[in-house]
Amino acid sequence: MKKVKSNVKTARTITGTVNRDVLEYTVGNDPEWDLHLAEWDCIGTAAHVTMLAAMPVNPPVMQPAECAAVIKELAAIIARIRQGRFSISRADQDVHMAVERMLTDRLGDTGRRVHTGRSRNDQVAVDLRLYSKNELLNTLDETLALARALCRFARKHKNVPMVGRTHLQPAMPSSVGLWASGYAEGLLDDIVTLEAAYTVNDRNPLGSAAGYGVPLPIDRRLTTRLLGFREPVHNVFYASCARGKVEGIILCALQQIMLELSRIAEDLIIFSMPEFGYFSLPKEFCTGSSIMPQKYNPDVLELVRGRTARIMGLAQGVLITRKALPGGYNRDLQETKGALIEGFNCVRGSLRMLAGIIDGIVVNREALLGAFSPGVFATDYALELVAAGRPFRAAYNHVREHLDELGCADPFKAVSRKTHLGATAGLDLKLLMSSISRHAASSKSRRRKFYGCLSKLVGVNYQEVK
Amino acid sequence: MKKVKSNVKTARTITGTVNRDVLEYTVGNDPEWDLHLAEWDCIGTAAHVTMLAAMPVNPPVMQPAECAAVIKELAAIIARIRQGRFSISRADQDVHMAVERMLTDRLGDTGRRVHTGRSRNDQVAVDLRLYSKNELLNTLDETLALARALCRFARKHKNVPMVGRTHLQPAMPSSVGLWASGYAEGLLDDIVTLEAAYTVNDRNPLGSAAGYGVPLPIDRRLTTRLLGFREPVHNVFYASCARGKVEGIILCALQQIMLELSRIAEDLIIFSMPEFGYFSLPKEFCTGSSIMPQKYNPDVLELVRGRTARIMGLAQGVLITRKALPGGYNRDLQETKGALIEGFNCVRGSLRMLAGIIDGIVVNREALLGAFSPGVFATDYALELVAAGRPFRAAYNHVREHLDELGCADPFKAVSRKTHLGATAGLDLKLLMSSISRHAASSKSRRRKFYGCLSKLVGVNYQEVK
Amino acid sequence: MKKVKSNVKTARTITGTVNRDVLEYTVGNDPEWDLHLAEWDCIGTAAHVTMLAAMPVNPPVMQPAECAAVIKELAAIIARIRQGRFSISRADQDVHMAVERMLTDRLGDTGRRVHTGRSRNDQVAVDLRLYSKNELLNTLDETLALARALCRFARKHKNVPMVGRTHLQPAMPSSVGLWASGYAEGLLDDIVTLEAAYTVNDRNPLGSAAGYGVPLPIDRRLTTRLLGFREPVHNVFYASCARGKVEGIILCALQQIMLELSRIAEDLIIFSMPEFGYFSLPKEFCTGSSIMPQKYNPDVLELVRGRTARIMGLAQGVLITRKALPGGYNRDLQETKGALIEGFNCVRGSLRMLAGIIDGIVVNREALLGAFSPGVFATDYALELVAAGRPFRAAYNHVREHLDELGCADPFKAVSRKTHLGATAGLDLKLLMSSISRHAASSKSRRRKFYGCLSKLVGVNYQEVK
Amino acid sequence: MKKVKSNVKTARTITGTVNRDVLEYTVGNDPEWDLHLAEWDCIGTAAHVTMLAAMPVNPPVMQPAECAAVIKELAAIIARIRQGRFSISRADQDVHMAVERMLTDRLGDTGRRVHTGRSRNDQVAVDLRLYSKNELLNTLDETLALARALCRFARKHKNVPMVGRTHLQPAMPSSVGLWASGYAEGLLDDIVTLEAAYTVNDRNPLGSAAGYGVPLPIDRRLTTRLLGFREPVHNVFYASCARGKVEGIILCALQQIMLELSRIAEDLIIFSMPEFGYFSLPKEFCTGSSIMPQKYNPDVLELVRGRTARIMGLAQGVLITRKALPGGYNRDLQETKGALIEGFNCVRGSLRMLAGIIDGIVVNREALLGAFSPGVFATDYALELVAAGRPFRAAYNHVREHLDELGCADPFKAVSRKTHLGATAGLDLKLLMSSISRHAASSKSRRRKFYGCLSKLVGVNYQEVK
Repeated sequence: MKKVKSNVKTARTITGTVNRDVLEYTVGNDPEWDLHLAEWDCIGTAAHVTMLAAMPVNPPVMQPAECAAVIKELAAIIARIRQGRFSISRADQDVHMAVERMLTDRLGDTGRRVHTGRSRNDQVAVDLRLYSKNELLNTLDETLALARALCRFARKHKNVPMVGRTHLQPAMPSSVGLWASGYAEGLLDDIVTLEAAYTVNDRNPLGSAAGYGVPLPIDRRLTTRLLGFREPVHNVFYASCARGKVEGIILCALQQIMLELSRIAEDLIIFSMPEFGYFSLPKEFCTGSSIMPQKYNPDVLELVRGRTARIMGLAQGVLITRKALPGGYNRDLQETKGALIEGFNCVRGSLRMLAGIIDGIVVNREALLGAFSPGVFATDYALELVAAGRPFRAAYNHVREHLDELGCADPFKAVSRKTHLGATAGLDLKLLMSSISRHAASSKSRRRKFYGCLSKLVGVNYQEVK
Repeated sequence: MKKVKSNVKTARTITGTVNRDVLEYTVGNDPEWDLHLAEWDCIGTAAHVTMLAAMPVNPPVMQPAECAAVIKELAAIIARIRQGRFSISRADQDVHMAVERMLTDRLGDTGRRVHTGRSRNDQVAVDLRLYSKNELLNTLDETLALARALCRFARKHKNVPMVGRTHLQPAMPSSVGLWASGYAEGLLDDIVTLEAAYTVNDRNPLGSAAGYGVPLPIDRRLTTRLLGFREPVHNVFYASCARGKVEGIILCALQQIMLELSRIAEDLIIFSMPEFGYFSLPKEFCTGSSIMPQKYNPDVLELVRGRTARIMGLAQGVLITRKALPGGYNRDLQETKGALIEGFNCVRGSLRMLAGIIDGIVVNREALLGAFSPGVFATDYALELVAAGRPFRAAYNHVREHLDELGCADPFKAVSRKTHLGATAGLDLKLLMSSISRHAASSKSRRRKFYGCLSKLVGVNYQEVK
Repeated sequence: MKKVKSNVKTARTITGTVNRDVLEYTVGNDPEWDLHLAEWDCIGTAAHVTMLAAMPVNPPVMQPAECAAVIKELAAIIARIRQGRFSISRADQDVHMAVERMLTDRLGDTGRRVHTGRSRNDQVAVDLRLYSKNELLNTLDETLALARALCRFARKHKNVPMVGRTHLQPAMPSSVGLWASGYAEGLLDDIVTLEAAYTVNDRNPLGSAAGYGVPLPIDRRLTTRLLGFREPVHNVFYASCARGKVEGIILCALQQIMLELSRIAEDLIIFSMPEFGYFSLPKEFCTGSSIMPQKYNPDVLELVRGRTARIMGLAQGVLITRKALPGGYNRDLQETKGALIEGFNCVRGSLRMLAGIIDGIVVNREALLGAFSPGVFATDYALELVAAGRPFRAAYNHVREHLDELGCADPFKAVSRKTHLGATAGLDLKLLMSSISRHAASSKSRRRKFYGCLSKLVGVNYQEVK
Repeated sequence: MKKVKSNVKTARTITGTVNRDVLEYTVGNDPEWDLHLAEWDCIGTAAHVTMLAAMPVNPPVMQPAECAAVIKELAAIIARIRQGRFSISRADQDVHMAVERMLTDRLGDTGRRVHTGRSRNDQVAVDLRLYSKNELLNTLDETLALARALCRFARKHKNVPMVGRTHLQPAMPSSVGLWASGYAEGLLDDIVTLEAAYTVNDRNPLGSAAGYGVPLPIDRRLTTRLLGFREPVHNVFYASCARGKVEGIILCALQQIMLELSRIAEDLIIFSMPEFGYFSLPKEFCTGSSIMPQKYNPDVLELVRGRTARIMGLAQGVLITRKALPGGYNRDLQETKGALIEGFNCVRGSLRMLAGIIDGIVVNREALLGAFSPGVFATDYALELVAAGRPFRAAYNHVREHLDELGCADPFKAVSRKTHLGATAGLDLKLLMSSISRHAASSKSRRRKFYGCLSKLVGVNYQEVK
């Protein structure tokens, strides 16, 4: 219900004077989103000034002592960020201007040299890649943690019979182990796209300036090494065009994880209804109603579904932004930042919630066994006729015509008879667990290398950070 | 880089004790989004207690004096909201619990009676409809304001020739008046879907409780009158299922407006490039570069495009949420609130920005005239042959084979010769303006009626509010 | 597995010679989609030539006798279309060129005059609006038919108790009548957006040529009358820019219907699982499995869900197409045609399927009654304490602490005690039915007027067409 | 305008009798889409029967001679498919039933044994993975071909100056080489996600039956080897849940390619407008207008943009389908097939079109050079001041205040002075070309291995197939 001010007012920014309403519109939520990038902006700037100080020009753009002073200030800003004492004013517009202003306030002309040979596009591109690299590693670890929880759950209830369903209708005998480890395997497929996003992201855009380079001997290989990137983005025009693209690829990968989680959530919501009662959800993950005293609702699982929808929309928004966008930087891309940050927060939160729920589920054997009806064994019976020599289609038709005569079989036996690879009695959970461990080890070693570079660059300890 | 706390802690809420991480996940951004709903929540509560006090039961649920006390407190809370002194804690979870707690803190048992016969679903549904009604009226007015600005611009430059394009290639003679008033007419079509959203939204869901009514003689017609709604949603189950649906319909209407704005923005970005120079954008709507000193970029227009993409994504997220959602309230729907609020903010801001830009554009006649080349007149020439009796397809082929011989005609004359309805010389801008005025008058009378009800209900002045 | 031909070949079209692979790419599925538009193209052309023959120019563009000859040919083409003997070659590219070629083959120079003063953009725009008008009326009628089926179902089982759910968990006593009529009311809300789409669509774009008019005294009011449109699109530039927009608005309205259907489908899928058994689906709407002899799966309902997703995607594609598209016609818009046609087919088919299913459902009272557990009555019990004077929050807390002591109440009584407006015992199904009838009458009168114009224009009977 | 038949009729299918309208609705476009899968269905069946014949059961499910007879028939069906003489009736419903029926017609009981131990879910899953594997290899090759065309173009015009743009406004000196090779590098990033899709897809789902295995010693490792898959999907429940997921991952990868193409297309559309004239598009890729004789429109490029939107919508539809879908097969997934096939066709066609256009573009040096204005050199000038010792921000402000005094510099020199990695004079096109070649070699070797398996399995030559 805010009123639009009719009287035009202006505000001063580092690049000139602008209309206040315009500033409000253009800055948008940047000061808030940029807080997530603040530490990474300091790190990117540290790499840039280290490179400037090493640049073989005469007179040098920056003296080694100036460089050290800047890095010291950056470390101080990082400390402030970690203490929650860093903020971005609307006049600063964004984190880049805020940091440059702080450096200039403290170091005068040295601060004014920092932006030599780079643009804000450059900065935000490198900030986002550093931020995303860290978040991708976190997401990887948390995806693996959920896969591990599902495997543990599968192992614990491996041979507990459960009605297998297609079209939600009872279909064939299955087991809790098959159900849970199936989703774990699904998450491992999602890690393939997550890894691809990691690979695309793990390249250094710094040194592209506004997308057309600068007439200075910028050493992009040096900043690549300092920041722990796999390699530089080569073409500087592409370095700038890739903004929004990397975010889109990451969000598509995150969206895949959410889709998998939404299916786990849906199954759990259904199977914990009193009409099924297969699973009791841990009460600390349920919430009540303001009017109905008896309620314990699976709110967390429903929010996983709801946030899947939201992330899908955010991803879609980022993709649409790039459609037919002219080459070179365009301001449209500012809008992709928030979607990326919200995407990571939401996926990571959902992964942790689900891992907690899986760990806390109580499995009700009686309810699971009670759900078996004769029809569930119809296919097994047809295949027994096949084993006795009948062509399958004839056996199928025979059973279909004698459904009423079908009796209930022993679910445990039914489950134990599917011995082929990946079936209820052919599951190799160790294989799955070892695949999870391999991924975890690779993530750990990447993190160690990455944090090693960062610690060396700004002298801040990155060992314990997550 | 926040670390997940490993030690499980709990927090108390009005509906019980929950795990702290779970509370964090379930509450999400609600305390922030709910600030936009706070005043409306007080109004909805005022209607509810007025109805409770009038309910023919013995003993009465609420005495008239209690009702008056509650409304007085609500008016005080509204005052605090308007002063920016209202906030929602994570323990409150949402605005509904915050207001109920404040009332109970001040009024004791009277406060504890307020929630009789309603649920939070009820409350958030009515809050969102009241909020949306007000925002839809604001959006309507701002859409009309932009249409009016386009009409003014069209009238001022009505017959200034401009190359008409298809496929972005020069096509036929056109005019600045045709271009600008075309987009104004487009916005009037968008108002049809906006009005439909208004109609769907303008119904009272209050009194549906959790979607299944209550065994109390709730008077839903009374609250409908008090709140100024067109009519009640009839079926209480549907009142609850409509949550998310109304939001989706509104966002689809907002998205249509943004799509129209994105096309205006695209045209302006192209036609203000130096290669065209048709239009000079007002400098106060442009921003500079941190590295390139010469730059004035059409950032505002690019953000209009970028936010179009974002709103499309948010709308999509809301629609996806409802796909195959089981009947009755599901927590997934919490996620739709933020999209709605962001949608209104973004569309309204974009409408105001574009109106300002249109008002400030300088039209460069020479650049417009200089762009006419012989080919632009080819169709006119073919139709001259038709006028002389040649079948059209033959005339077309003749001109196509003699393109090199074509000369340039007088653009002013070409524009003045298309006299039929809606063509360059057949535009009826008065018709358009009177249609805009009709819509504006209807919006004004709706607003007057709506604000009249609200003022009467809570004794707060709603005349000047926008 | 088609191989790309490496040797470049060319093909002749009416507008010149083009590369064969290029023709393949540009024509796409148009010849197939355009079959849906063929009859409407003939009708649009009939209106155009009637107008040309009446045009006050000397020499006349077309003689009355020529006009009559063209219309006779068009009626013959319509007859061929209805017999399925009309096809479009890739050299014709689209229906417009196909019809123009047929007319020229039969009528020589008269055929070559037909395209005077119009463009293909003009034609496809008017074709799509005529096609959509007819389909919107059909969709309206079929939506009303489903709403009527739901009302009949609700009336028949009005007071049959059914556990009302929120979060899919048992919540409060409800009824089959409340459930079914709730969705009927939902469809009436969808009709509001469908009507808005109808209003936006019901305007005549013909006479805009390529979006910039022509130097001929085109009488757009005449063609508007002949074709039965509400009014002309005024601005000719906007007439061309509205292409894709109208389709997007229609698809958003169709998508809303599908979303509602997807929720009905989801509820039916769940409530017909053996664990619930509330409803038995008519077997003719279920299908079997190729391997499991016992299966009757709710495939139709699942396809309703799946096609909801598909239509959402198609709608999204159309919306994205228009984002930041430069003004005037752009070829991108060709892609929106198929989405529109598929959208109508899918929504109409789904509406008919669901109406058939609702009519055939068997309601199992025992299963419905058997699902009531004590907790479902907890809120009713708390409100009894309120009726006895206890503040609601205190009553709520009391019940919450004594849940174990709660007994089961009589579901019939519980349902009969919610007497307020729109609750289980306060439903006014006559109100709903009369609203449906009002819409149906309005649709019938629109159809009569529309078909009257068409019959008069081309002398073909449009009474029985649907 | 087809009328719905009111009289209910039924049709017989292999799984029972169904209502004709229902059959129409459920079968949908499957008979058409399934033609794309027909050959792959034969191949999958060949692997299945080979495995059945080797199964260590007594009596054997299938004799070696029976197996040979089936494979001979399958080879004959493949031949018919390649000749275009294979079709699927609505009674067959889908390709699986059509092939099973043909085998049974020819081989009697042997045909009836073929379906032993598998379901249609199984079949369509393996068909789609085989089809996708082949199409992914084709898409890879065609993406590489376009990247190669861009590199060739970049090499040819490497140092031709071109105004570099941000916000579409002139920004800094750039080159045609930087522009073209930037997009080539972009495509290589897209290949990372395409490879991830390949990896996820390259696993064998066959042997999962309806998602719960069968009580037969199915040898899934054997069919994996026979079909040339990397490994089996392990968990049979997941094999069934992965349906729709793999399609979604593939479509997201295809969508990324389209987004890149849409940006190339947008740049070409803009830079080939007469106001720029940088590039002349090959006329055979342009098309004319039905009304404007002078027109050569960049229709192909516009369709690339339009199809980008369409593919984004189709991808979105597939993703939405899976959101919160219950575990196990659900019929919703049928709808994802068409999107996948259309996705491949569209992306591959667009890649080939763009490669043709890039190869045929004429570069107009004069137009490119004529576009340089003094402002384009402003940043270079500021950095000269930096080189002379001025802090950057001071130099920037100095130039900003003296913009009017700026003169035009030599574009060739400006371009030659950006020598750092990836800038105009620091491009390493050989690096790019060698990366393309590496990918091409890997694709070739994969294809050789894949086709080797297929040829051996069904005795049909797969060397030349693409």
